[in-house]
Amino acid sequence: MIKVGIVGATGYTGAELLRILCNHPQVEVVTITSRGDAGLPVAELYPGLRGRVGLAFVEPSVEALAACDVVFFATPHCVAMESVPELLAAGKVVIDLSADFRIKDAALWEKWYGHAHTAQEALKQAVYALPEVNREAIRTAQLIACPGCYPTAVQLGFMPLLEAGVIDPANLVANAASGVSGAGRQAKVANLFTEVHDSYKAYGVPGHRHLPEIEQGLNGMSKQPVSLTFVPHLVPMIRGIHATLYATLTDDNADVQALFEQRYANEAFVDVLPKGSHPETRSVKGINTCRLAVHRPQGRNTVVVLSVIDNLTKGAAGQAVQAMNIRFGLDETTGLLQAALMP
Amino acid sequence: MIKVGIVGATGYTGAELLRILCNHPQVEVVTITSRGDAGLPVAELYPGLRGRVGLAFVEPSVEALAACDVVFFATPHCVAMESVPELLAAGKVVIDLSADFRIKDAALWEKWYGHAHTAQEALKQAVYALPEVNREAIRTAQLIACPGCYPTAVQLGFMPLLEAGVIDPANLVANAASGVSGAGRQAKVANLFTEVHDSYKAYGVPGHRHLPEIEQGLNGMSKQPVSLTFVPHLVPMIRGIHATLYATLTDDNADVQALFEQRYANEAFVDVLPKGSHPETRSVKGINTCRLAVHRPQGRNTVVVLSVIDNLTKGAAGQAVQAMNIRFGLDETTGLLQAALMP
Amino acid sequence: MIKVGIVGATGYTGAELLRILCNHPQVEVVTITSRGDAGLPVAELYPGLRGRVGLAFVEPSVEALAACDVVFFATPHCVAMESVPELLAAGKVVIDLSADFRIKDAALWEKWYGHAHTAQEALKQAVYALPEVNREAIRTAQLIACPGCYPTAVQLGFMPLLEAGVIDPANLVANAASGVSGAGRQAKVANLFTEVHDSYKAYGVPGHRHLPEIEQGLNGMSKQPVSLTFVPHLVPMIRGIHATLYATLTDDNADVQALFEQRYANEAFVDVLPKGSHPETRSVKGINTCRLAVHRPQGRNTVVVLSVIDNLTKGAAGQAVQAMNIRFGLDETTGLLQAALMP
Amino acid sequence: MIKVGIVGATGYTGAELLRILCNHPQVEVVTITSRGDAGLPVAELYPGLRGRVGLAFVEPSVEALAACDVVFFATPHCVAMESVPELLAAGKVVIDLSADFRIKDAALWEKWYGHAHTAQEALKQAVYALPEVNREAIRTAQLIACPGCYPTAVQLGFMPLLEAGVIDPANLVANAASGVSGAGRQAKVANLFTEVHDSYKAYGVPGHRHLPEIEQGLNGMSKQPVSLTFVPHLVPMIRGIHATLYATLTDDNADVQALFEQRYANEAFVDVLPKGSHPETRSVKGINTCRLAVHRPQGRNTVVVLSVIDNLTKGAAGQAVQAMNIRFGLDETTGLLQAALMP
Repeated sequence: MIKVGIVGATGYTGAELLRILCNHPQVEVVTITSRGDAGLPVAELYPGLRGRVGLAFVEPSVEALAACDVVFFATPHCVAMESVPELLAAGKVVIDLSADFRIKDAALWEKWYGHAHTAQEALKQAVYALPEVNREAIRTAQLIACPGCYPTAVQLGFMPLLEAGVIDPANLVANAASGVSGAGRQAKVANLFTEVHDSYKAYGVPGHRHLPEIEQGLNGMSKQPVSLTFVPHLVPMIRGIHATLYATLTDDNADVQALFEQRYANEAFVDVLPKGSHPETRSVKGINTCRLAVHRPQGRNTVVVLSVIDNLTKGAAGQAVQAMNIRFGLDETTGLLQAALMP
Repeated sequence: MIKVGIVGATGYTGAELLRILCNHPQVEVVTITSRGDAGLPVAELYPGLRGRVGLAFVEPSVEALAACDVVFFATPHCVAMESVPELLAAGKVVIDLSADFRIKDAALWEKWYGHAHTAQEALKQAVYALPEVNREAIRTAQLIACPGCYPTAVQLGFMPLLEAGVIDPANLVANAASGVSGAGRQAKVANLFTEVHDSYKAYGVPGHRHLPEIEQGLNGMSKQPVSLTFVPHLVPMIRGIHATLYATLTDDNADVQALFEQRYANEAFVDVLPKGSHPETRSVKGINTCRLAVHRPQGRNTVVVLSVIDNLTKGAAGQAVQAMNIRFGLDETTGLLQAALMP
Repeated sequence: MIKVGIVGATGYTGAELLRILCNHPQVEVVTITSRGDAGLPVAELYPGLRGRVGLAFVEPSVEALAACDVVFFATPHCVAMESVPELLAAGKVVIDLSADFRIKDAALWEKWYGHAHTAQEALKQAVYALPEVNREAIRTAQLIACPGCYPTAVQLGFMPLLEAGVIDPANLVANAASGVSGAGRQAKVANLFTEVHDSYKAYGVPGHRHLPEIEQGLNGMSKQPVSLTFVPHLVPMIRGIHATLYATLTDDNADVQALFEQRYANEAFVDVLPKGSHPETRSVKGINTCRLAVHRPQGRNTVVVLSVIDNLTKGAAGQAVQAMNIRFGLDETTGLLQAALMP
Repeated sequence: MIKVGIVGATGYTGAELLRILCNHPQVEVVTITSRGDAGLPVAELYPGLRGRVGLAFVEPSVEALAACDVVFFATPHCVAMESVPELLAAGKVVIDLSADFRIKDAALWEKWYGHAHTAQEALKQAVYALPEVNREAIRTAQLIACPGCYPTAVQLGFMPLLEAGVIDPANLVANAASGVSGAGRQAKVANLFTEVHDSYKAYGVPGHRHLPEIEQGLNGMSKQPVSLTFVPHLVPMIRGIHATLYATLTDDNADVQALFEQRYANEAFVDVLPKGSHPETRSVKGINTCRLAVHRPQGRNTVVVLSVIDNLTKGAAGQAVQAMNIRFGLDETTGLLQAALMP
């Protein structure tokens, strides 16, 4: 059994991690830390875990995590970077769900996140854990940086086209929409039910922190530099990300459906839908799958990709467990093969 | 492996059964029938099952179900009663999720359902499968009648009080609320998103078919005859039932919290919350648990019980699998121990 | 034109008051105060008011309100009581939407609200402004205390039965459900979209502050003392209250439908539905109407009343404007005759 | 008073028309027709209109509409074209909310709608009633064709940029999202609450009937031919359209904010938000306003426009009343100046 510690499990990605791990056959969660809620039984905060998770939160410390084989960080940014170097030094595998180690260029990170990056040595060895891109590097990584939710949906959607070189990378559009759980569990007026329900809006149009992360990933897939316009929207639903991607086709003969099917033929968690499909976010509710469809409307030269994930699962905790499975030599799908909760 | 057939899996209880069974370690689903959708891959109707359920619907017939050990009916009422006698004669175990075999008094059934009951011999041997009441009878039953969703929530909520004889059974109120999936997957204007969303209403106040089923069950728990006022409501959510139960306490010294804790001490799927709690339906989303809380507001003589279940799981498909586990000698919780999808 | 000031319009009842008053033909809103947001244009906080309300918030003070004929308080409890005596002394009519002047017994108020009542002289002259009960007193009142949202729905539902003396007042049940706007616009985790959406729960079962207010009102309608069990629930919708009321009929021959129709024959804002109806909260979305239906399920001796209002309109701001119309000698319906927003 | 007849008021646009007109000070609705529901009181179908609309549906016929000055069609496509020529011959003004007279090229209409166009003479005189474009023509039109909901939001969003010639018209993207009321009131499984709630999806990517209508409108604003990629999405909300528009800026010095403010300076129902804004659909719930914001993310050469309307109001019934006001010489805003229902 892999012994797991979780830092910061009071947020939604932490809760999702517990939901998944409490049914994982090869894992024992031994420590869950929280600075604010030490002493509180986890199931009191998340009644859905009553009878499934018996632990209480403990004060965070490297000692508390000593017995673990792997430590997950489900914290806001700037928290993991404080403790990770010490845990790495102690020989732990660290899987960070926060943004601290996603962007390789520390200066770029600092510009977008507005803080100094205090763990730049660790950053150098971090592996960006989109398994469909970096599976081999994950197998031996000590510090695993899980992608953001939007970046997962957008990168998986553009990848077959960029790798094949059949679209113009200089003029990409990602129009994305997220459920409200993406905003976390902070008490803010803007996220009240009464402010969000039965309404829809764009946000962060001038600039969203996932933009540099996505462009970094897309540049890795493209021979020419990528320029992306990224507009996120807020949907009155709890979970789910839907990315609608637009690109100009440069090869009029490209069989885009075939490109997607071939690229993901061996991927357990990427599902390319039949031609003409429209994936719904509910079709991945609670599961680690990304479902994709590709269209070429009216036979014109704009290709449209539809990409859906559950932001808390494939977009966060599920993908983190997928990385753990890879890292510890388990079958990649262990504990991750439920069917979506639908309806 | 138990070989399972499902009749009528195009509705929501059928889909939920598949969601649960595709992860059940001791089950193989071998046949799924549908009169209207024969030939259609199941996952095309329910994209959440893509990659998890590979079968297509077949025409319903006793022959098609010959290879099964157990046949689930997830059909509207009046369907199971047509085929069940033949399946029983063929030695199959039948688990019926519909209303056909829930009410022991055929005349009462006919009054409420408006049809002749054409399988009254089978009805006599049917076991009403609320495991917390009838566990022993389920172990050897050939025909298992699963309780309705409201009846499950209401009976589990009143049971400790009625069995202990501390309330007046002649004056019970069950004010219940259900998510919209309880109305099924029929194309009706009344169940359109635009008709239901952001609104709330009572329905069926003059009389709801679950009333006689609930009164039958409560009478089995009570020394004196029961009279219940049952008012269901429609909540703009997909899953979940919340029953708020009112009764007049006849024993001023009764420790109602203790009565609940003792009655359910050994029940894996009934969770009595600490004093003062208010269970939320989301705390059981997708799982087979009933969570209960009991109150005595202002120390007056009215006792209030709060009871929540997922109508598709403990209120239908999950409870059916629980019954199957009991009937086939498995651990009762096999395949049913996920944590709720929350948030 | 009646000159109106509003104190505390940053909350939802204040916003609703502005939505109604900006279309009221006899009113000019001249001052809107807010301690926290002085200087902010109102329409910046509530973009739905852009182009309709041009004022900015000002610091609250009696001077700022000097030009007004009437001052509305849309504040949390304990705010109005601080300023009201001074405004009364200045000759202003005050309409208080908060709880400060609803309960006549100051000691009872202090027990439930946990604060000393600092304006008990004013309290003595306050008129409880349920127009269907107190219309005449409102015409000359200087201090008008608007009923709470639940109390409005529950009192209008029980009134015809209590006044006629055909039910047992010692054993009443009010099972009520509210949209989330009833919880106000405070930043609390419990009211986040992600905590409330797609779920349902009871709350405040041990005791809710509207209980003493409702019992006070019901006692005014009944010859014998009233005892009420009141259980509120939270519905994942923005607006609306639905009260489901249960009482034991003591007169088997009472024609309850006729009692309701007669009692409300001349009330512009109470709509008694035809026999057998189930009012939906959306049928009163944004309007000042209470819709009622009365049932006697199965012909037994329990009578069930269904009562719906919009908690922000008839349950708060609309009813306050109705009281203002009465107080200033206008047609009671002025500015209040829109149709519900449906769908 | 203008005497109004409505054909086909059982759908949502018809109900919205009634909601608006029952408070319009210069209008009397004298006839409401419905083939299927003749005899039924309108308020029985739409309880939100109880006490506001006293009429019952009558069988549709030209005679029934004889007393009207203006006839609104709120019907599915292919209905208006059957009766309109006769009504025009009878001297009535006709305002059609359906698609029958929106597209000037009958062959193009027939291709997208799959029916023969049987009123091509009438089509020639139809005025496309986007008041911000065609106000003068509306003043004297006898046949007024109201724009579709998506076309209204998209055209108002692109107009200032296309008219100024500062974007490349050959490569436009309109990523739009609609509330479910846009799908109408038909009983379809796909629009059930349980199929739509808590989920999000694109639809009609291969081709949506609003594409040719939008391109026709945009071509009228542009010197060079327009090519648009249009992808609609379904949002789990009742009302509202949000269009996110993308275009490549061809004039690096264009002050896009100023272009919007100047173009709409005198428009009562178009609200250009301050720089940096993100309009929410709820800010126009139930009102006839379009709110717009324009961005140039990261200072790159892609301009992003955000455009919100209520699909039933500015996207249908409200805009139709606006056109009626213009046509009958009333103040354009008569009956249309409510504030949005928010929260």
